Amino acid sequence: MPSISNKGNSMPQSPIRKLVPYAEAAKKNGTKVYHLNIGQPDIKTPQVALDAVKNNSIEVLSYARSEGSEIYRTKLANYYEKNDINVTANNIIATTGGSEALLFTIGSITDPGDEIIIPEPFYANYNGFSTASGVKVVPVISKIENNFALPAIEDFEKLITSKTKAILICNPGNPTGYLYSKEELEKLKQIVVKHDLFLIADEVYREFTYDGEKHNSVMSLDGLDQHTIMIDSVSKRYSMCGARIGCIVSRNEEFINTALKFAQARLSPPTYALLASEAALDTPQSYFDEVIEEYQERRNILISELQKIEGVRVANPKGAFYCIAELPVENSEDFAQWILEKFHHNNETLMVAPAGGFYSTKGEGLNQVRIAYVLNKEDLTRCVEILKVALEQYNNQ
Amino acid sequence: MPSISNKGNSMPQSPIRKLVPYAEAAKKNGTKVYHLNIGQPDIKTPQVALDAVKNNSIEVLSYARSEGSEIYRTKLANYYEKNDINVTANNIIATTGGSEALLFTIGSITDPGDEIIIPEPFYANYNGFSTASGVKVVPVISKIENNFALPAIEDFEKLITSKTKAILICNPGNPTGYLYSKEELEKLKQIVVKHDLFLIADEVYREFTYDGEKHNSVMSLDGLDQHTIMIDSVSKRYSMCGARIGCIVSRNEEFINTALKFAQARLSPPTYALLASEAALDTPQSYFDEVIEEYQERRNILISELQKIEGVRVANPKGAFYCIAELPVENSEDFAQWILEKFHHNNETLMVAPAGGFYSTKGEGLNQVRIAYVLNKEDLTRCVEILKVALEQYNNQ
Ligand SMILES: Cc1ncc(COP(=O)(O)O)c(C=O)c1O
Ligand SMILES: Cc1ncc(COP(=O)(O)O)c(C=O)c1O
Repeated sequence: MPSISNKGNSMPQSPIRKLVPYAEAAKKNGTKVYHLNIGQPDIKTPQVALDAVKNNSIEVLSYARSEGSEIYRTKLANYYEKNDINVTANNIIATTGGSEALLFTIGSITDPGDEIIIPEPFYANYNGFSTASGVKVVPVISKIENNFALPAIEDFEKLITSKTKAILICNPGNPTGYLYSKEELEKLKQIVVKHDLFLIADEVYREFTYDGEKHNSVMSLDGLDQHTIMIDSVSKRYSMCGARIGCIVSRNEEFINTALKFAQARLSPPTYALLASEAALDTPQSYFDEVIEEYQERRNILISELQKIEGVRVANPKGAFYCIAELPVENSEDFAQWILEKFHHNNETLMVAPAGGFYSTKGEGLNQVRIAYVLNKEDLTRCVEILKVALEQYNNQ
Repeated sequence: MPSISNKGNSMPQSPIRKLVPYAEAAKKNGTKVYHLNIGQPDIKTPQVALDAVKNNSIEVLSYARSEGSEIYRTKLANYYEKNDINVTANNIIATTGGSEALLFTIGSITDPGDEIIIPEPFYANYNGFSTASGVKVVPVISKIENNFALPAIEDFEKLITSKTKAILICNPGNPTGYLYSKEELEKLKQIVVKHDLFLIADEVYREFTYDGEKHNSVMSLDGLDQHTIMIDSVSKRYSMCGARIGCIVSRNEEFINTALKFAQARLSPPTYALLASEAALDTPQSYFDEVIEEYQERRNILISELQKIEGVRVANPKGAFYCIAELPVENSEDFAQWILEKFHHNNETLMVAPAGGFYSTKGEGLNQVRIAYVLNKEDLTRCVEILKVALEQYNNQ
């Protein structure tokens, strides 16, 4: 029998994959399972985007341009302009989700054996895209007691080798909800200039910042045009995860030309989704105001309720729609399985993502979970209640 | 300035990329350019697929399952059943186009430095996906004088090393139009069993066979369950190139589980396109009958008209919608540029794909072009007329 590659064998599993059968079994037993484990918002997609697809007049569903149409990229550049990011259509390649943007970026700037430094905890699929490209993720730990702020710049510097090609940050962060300050970005700027590295910023949660805080893009840093690469996506911004449209943005022409070769090999991003994404750019500001208010209220409830549980520590997220909570358990993976397998409260239970999978350093985050506030306030309140009862029962076994 | 990777630098350009500016310039000068260079059919997408998207009632455009829904994969398995391919939903992973299916397949079975043997001329993007995975394409030449039939099995055997992981065929072939016989597949079977290799068959043109010839799938070969991997796509079958839905099909469970990890890392195929693809499975047979008759008539005209031109040699395609033609020129790339840049006939000209890009062996195919019969019969007739006049003029310079 022919064999799977080492690469194939090393591809990581999703951190929640092991829990899925337990959730399914619970549901079969009549237990309602609240899903706090996923980044799939319940928010309605803007009507203007939905309508563009419903009213399409396509007769031959043709390939789109590999980099997305000039019109789409020009409209997108206008959107960025409004967000203090001055770019043109030529600085943009439309991709099949932020996922593909990450894959093309890593492919363009690394060879097998190269290294990318990423503050952990980080979006788990960075591991997958790195493994697929034969690249080593070098984690630099950020701490819950600091709200997951940028680690000291010396911590980065210690890790830089001749193999280091880039620093990758997620801003605002999944799973941390941390929003990097201008000062933190300036520190990163110094180090990438000094060591001639790329600075990749995954900004797919750009729109979701709270308490009046402003998002700072790496694309707004002066003098860093050759270094900065932004990853973006319509998935979260417009609650259009199923569209599968993202983009790569950079002013580094050589990099864009290289990424374009990857884009050309796969021919085209999805045409219907491009229609929806172009139309979504006309979403009124009132949509975002409402959505952000909704998320902020959810966050307030979630965090304040979590803090009332003894032994729970939680970082206060300033952006995105996740938080990392430290639980009074030894192993959050066991606990996450237990609440699905052995527990219910009035026939209800919940699924959270054990945080171990968001760390690259073995043994880190074992008592943490990631909670996504993608459910309405009432459900979230109920979820924290369930969690509280579950923790008591789990620790009194 | 941080530098692009060797991988990024080695990513190939599309064979027609260099010609694009000349085609654009010609159009700007008021010349009509017939595009025989692309695999984008002019055929209408089935109404049932278009309607499924127009009538969708999605309110939150959510991620689909990474492998595609159970319902979609089950319906797809039924389609295969009707094509003598007995598989279940579990043998299938829905992908973002056949392109992604190729990428995940290569990633699952190769490590950097491994080799895949491919009969040339072959679909040029096999180079791109291989380069992206650090894999070496080892070509085995097939000849126009044999209609591009399978090379002698000894030619394959000579190329097999400890690094060889798979043989990849395209059936029916792009760019050759060749349709492999059952006997040829049986020969491949023997060699992959003997050397414990995967046999990957790109069957995206399955439906398009002419002269009453039947398509034989590698999935119908007995005793090869652990070796065979089929690549498929809705792009050509339903003239739905812009959907971006394909799939990987294999009965090798370990392989499917590995490919699934790649699929999970990128989250989901495009949701609207899945709607269209599921509905497309209800396309009536009459649609295919008409489309195939149309392509067959086009092929007949194209081939017989081409054969009338002195010095032109052409293989008779039995499937897909391409043919390779040998022209009485030394360098078809120069010629393809010349007809766009320096030539027109009554303000019309054409764009063809120089065949050099479909060969991996340097210097092969330099006097050949690929012609896609994706235009209607009248236009095709006119194209051959233009080609004839152009060749005369080019050779009398
Ligand atoms: C931080 C981050 N980056 C990228 C992605 C990829 O999203 P998509 O491929 O849907 O754009 C996600 C999805 O959850 C994410 O959380
Ligand atoms: C032989 C072959 N395989 C795969 C593909 C990829 O097609 P898609 O990604 O649109 O399914 C093509 C497209 O032209 C092709 O010709």
